Amino acid sequence: MAPFLSMSKTKNEKTKKSAKSSQYRDPVVGVDLGGTKVLARLVDSDTGAASGRHKQPTPKDGPASVLDAVAEVVRKVEGWEDVAAVGVGIPGPVNRRGVVAYCPNIDGWDRPIDAASELEKRLGKPVVVANDVNCGAVAEHRVGAGRGVSAMLAVFVGTGVGGGLILDDELVVGERGQVGEIGHVTVKPGGRPCGCGGFGHLETYAGRAGMIREARRLASETDEGNYLADTIREGTIKSRHIAQALDAGDPVTIRLLQDAADALALGIGNIATVNDIPLAVLGGGIVDRLGEPFLDQIRQSPDFGGLGPDFVELRLAQRLDDAGAVGAAILAADAIA
Amino acid sequence: MAPFLSMSKTKNEKTKKSAKSSQYRDPVVGVDLGGTKVLARLVDSDTGAASGRHKQPTPKDGPASVLDAVAEVVRKVEGWEDVAAVGVGIPGPVNRRGVVAYCPNIDGWDRPIDAASELEKRLGKPVVVANDVNCGAVAEHRVGAGRGVSAMLAVFVGTGVGGGLILDDELVVGERGQVGEIGHVTVKPGGRPCGCGGFGHLETYAGRAGMIREARRLASETDEGNYLADTIREGTIKSRHIAQALDAGDPVTIRLLQDAADALALGIGNIATVNDIPLAVLGGGIVDRLGEPFLDQIRQSPDFGGLGPDFVELRLAQRLDDAGAVGAAILAADAIA
Repeated sequence: MAPFLSMSKTKNEKTKKSAKSSQYRDPVVGVDLGGTKVLARLVDSDTGAASGRHKQPTPKDGPASVLDAVAEVVRKVEGWEDVAAVGVGIPGPVNRRGVVAYCPNIDGWDRPIDAASELEKRLGKPVVVANDVNCGAVAEHRVGAGRGVSAMLAVFVGTGVGGGLILDDELVVGERGQVGEIGHVTVKPGGRPCGCGGFGHLETYAGRAGMIREARRLASETDEGNYLADTIREGTIKSRHIAQALDAGDPVTIRLLQDAADALALGIGNIATVNDIPLAVLGGGIVDRLGEPFLDQIRQSPDFGGLGPDFVELRLAQRLDDAGAVGAAILAADAIA
Repeated sequence: MAPFLSMSKTKNEKTKKSAKSSQYRDPVVGVDLGGTKVLARLVDSDTGAASGRHKQPTPKDGPASVLDAVAEVVRKVEGWEDVAAVGVGIPGPVNRRGVVAYCPNIDGWDRPIDAASELEKRLGKPVVVANDVNCGAVAEHRVGAGRGVSAMLAVFVGTGVGGGLILDDELVVGERGQVGEIGHVTVKPGGRPCGCGGFGHLETYAGRAGMIREARRLASETDEGNYLADTIREGTIKSRHIAQALDAGDPVTIRLLQDAADALALGIGNIATVNDIPLAVLGGGIVDRLGEPFLDQIRQSPDFGGLGPDFVELRLAQRLDDAGAVGAAILAADAIA
């Protein structure tokens, strides 16, 4: 019968597919704008292979300087004059019109800025901007652990917890650029206070900052030391310190990591159920460091949400530090395809 | 600058919009297949106005008879020969290819059936099938409380709790046809047992069946009667009995409804946050009966999930009994547009 008879053949689907199953596409420049540094790479958006690695510190004197720095780093990439587009991952909510509402980790970026247009003025080329975590999700979907899967959730567990959502092979952004904010899903009503003003959000249990805050609270309340609370007196705690504390058998760390696994299991299970998502790809400092045993801990959590661990597969992220730049480049290549 | 420079101008967006902002479209037939009856209406898919109302009981001798009955009811609609398409809402998971995995409330429908093709054979016309709750979501989005909003969650609270998700003005279905299953989001790990085998799912707190089960459990455990447990001895409990119990000040019902509001607040808030959804439309027996005061109870719940009640507006559904048939008709009209 005629192709329109099935729900699967919507008008959009064909267009979507063709944008991706392209033949060879020229390389594009991908930029990862972070709180401390700006990194630009030349990216083959089909394979995800990145070459060159140009960076400079993120300026501290406001968004105009930051955008200047992005343009400057792009110009250092060999062959940048010949690329057809530039993609930039930005650490703030970016709506579908390329407007960045604010960037908590960039000094002075406290108002909406049309970053795409600003960068196009500086570079004279098409520029696509997207949230950096969303770029990471795109990199995993297209050239990482989610290759070939049409719907997935990416979850990055670092200081906080961020995420990105792919449905029907497309990144979902949302009017307010907030899609994928799994870190602010409530896993325990009235639970630990979150930096956003809420309580019991996933990232207060699974993010490094939340774990450390809790370790310190326990140390001060019980007058008993613990590995993390002791370590932080000597400086910043990184994911490797958490891994070391676990290896050392520190009981507080063991408990905090179980809380983290339970929170991730509840949040991921619920989101996967409502969005019918067969795959969650997990990355970020803590997950990269703890690896597959931590995924097992999540899978086996009694708190696994929704239709359970059989409904959604968990995989480790494959693209580590370069995911932001690579994903941004892929989005730029898609936009001009 | 050129239109491709902004993230908003993806290849799909234009196509999507044009499918909807059509001029006058010829009427189509919409069918709502329920566990007890089949209802067919002639629907103006632009305004949502429905005329005619043909129904017959749902056969109990298997899916082939049920599909025969659907075709039969369609043929009773005046002018059905002239419509360009038929839409059918079905009470089971329907994937994007129009395959219905199973229908728990239809005798013998325990295996995947390509219902669209089967009905096309019987009717000689394009047929679109979709999940009935998803049809309800489409009706609210296009000709109900969600008109003009590009992303929304529909939540229908009845015996159980079902939902539908609209993103970028499109119904999201999912590979497994499970998108919108908010009833099976875990709101309390290890909580009340759910019919699906899980625990603490939203519908065990907010659905009528779950509330009644809990009322009976309380009555048997405490040896104290309560309105719902007493009423059920006399027959089925409908939403109006719950409203009556509330009016009568029955303390158990008051508590159960607070649990229901808390569960809905947690689930809706979380899903709205991750999917960046500005609007949730609530309908179904209990919500229709309790109305705006119940929505207030949800808004004010201390358990409201994610970024809170300011992030997602709650509205009462506008399309009541005809939402399934109207939404199915709209999907059919879209498919042939």
